[in-house]
Amino acid sequence: MFAQLPTLQKLVRQLQRVPYLASKNVYKVAMYFLRCDAKTLEQLCATILEAKQALVPCEHCFNWTEGTSVCAICSSDKRDKSTLCVVETWHDLFALENAGEYKGLYHVLGGALSPLEGVGPDQLTINALIKRLDGTIKEIIFATNPTPEGEATASYIWSKIGKQSVQISKLASGVPIGSSLEYMDRVTIGKALQGRRPF
Amino acid sequence: MFAQLPTLQKLVRQLQRVPYLASKNVYKVAMYFLRCDAKTLEQLCATILEAKQALVPCEHCFNWTEGTSVCAICSSDKRDKSTLCVVETWHDLFALENAGEYKGLYHVLGGALSPLEGVGPDQLTINALIKRLDGTIKEIIFATNPTPEGEATASYIWSKIGKQSVQISKLASGVPIGSSLEYMDRVTIGKALQGRRPF
Repeated sequence: MFAQLPTLQKLVRQLQRVPYLASKNVYKVAMYFLRCDAKTLEQLCATILEAKQALVPCEHCFNWTEGTSVCAICSSDKRDKSTLCVVETWHDLFALENAGEYKGLYHVLGGALSPLEGVGPDQLTINALIKRLDGTIKEIIFATNPTPEGEATASYIWSKIGKQSVQISKLASGVPIGSSLEYMDRVTIGKALQGRRPF
Repeated sequence: MFAQLPTLQKLVRQLQRVPYLASKNVYKVAMYFLRCDAKTLEQLCATILEAKQALVPCEHCFNWTEGTSVCAICSSDKRDKSTLCVVETWHDLFALENAGEYKGLYHVLGGALSPLEGVGPDQLTINALIKRLDGTIKEIIFATNPTPEGEATASYIWSKIGKQSVQISKLASGVPIGSSLEYMDRVTIGKALQGRRPF
């Protein structure tokens, strides 16, 4: 069936490399491309390549930046330069920014330690993080995900920071707002109990 | 947050138009594009545009074809030219071909009738289907999906075919092989009972 459609085969094979396109969806996306008009498609492709060219990681925090080498957060004078929030990915930074609660700087690790997947300290931006600790930063907040990998990454960084006079904290674990205790796993409930706060 | 990243904003806005990329995944796909190497990305874009150019609908059955105006199935002399299987989309054709059971021709409608979504008979290839019924085709098998839209589309086509001497059938409804009666809905069980066959 596919043998007579080499270009479609090639397209599907390349789309399969894109994460979050489950196998069935790859065909549906390919069909969308074939059915939508040529101009939209050319624009999409041009934009993908344009974004790839224009967006570079910030030289301080590895957040994405465009047109400058330092990102908007690092170069803003409204941000508290003494607090550093360590996140795994840009999505986490984006989620924290959307919450609008945090006014310090960030550091994007680029993932979490995962020896089985070949992600060691050198694959992340841990060395760059250690170099940033030149005295201006007074507090580090670990906002890695509450997964084994995220926790291990935070512990590793903590062991590397050593005896520097930096206050270190991590995000609170507990029951999410709006959810129901009934549906929470026991580890979360345990953490929520341990971390209980005066009313 | 996004204001300083206009190209990323543009990319995300264009990716959002692609179906089957749920809102959260759009960002993940955008991040994948930014992180993967430039060459892979250029290849992907080139392939998308190449596929758009190369693949055209078959002039008989509207299956995709490449390099020819008639698809591999319509032009094959191993296929039974007296049987026509009517499917909604190319995915359905692909699924039927994969089953390897069917040796006749196809007709891809391009969807199912859905007045609420603005899909009327003129948006589908129903007229082209009627034109194909010039006497060579002896049997039509409706393989539209067992949804209200699919059933309505089959009924509409049946009413249009009129009194031509064509045998018309549709795919059997019933319990899928490997599944369990326990998990079947009552309509399916009802259909399976109605369509029971001698053992």
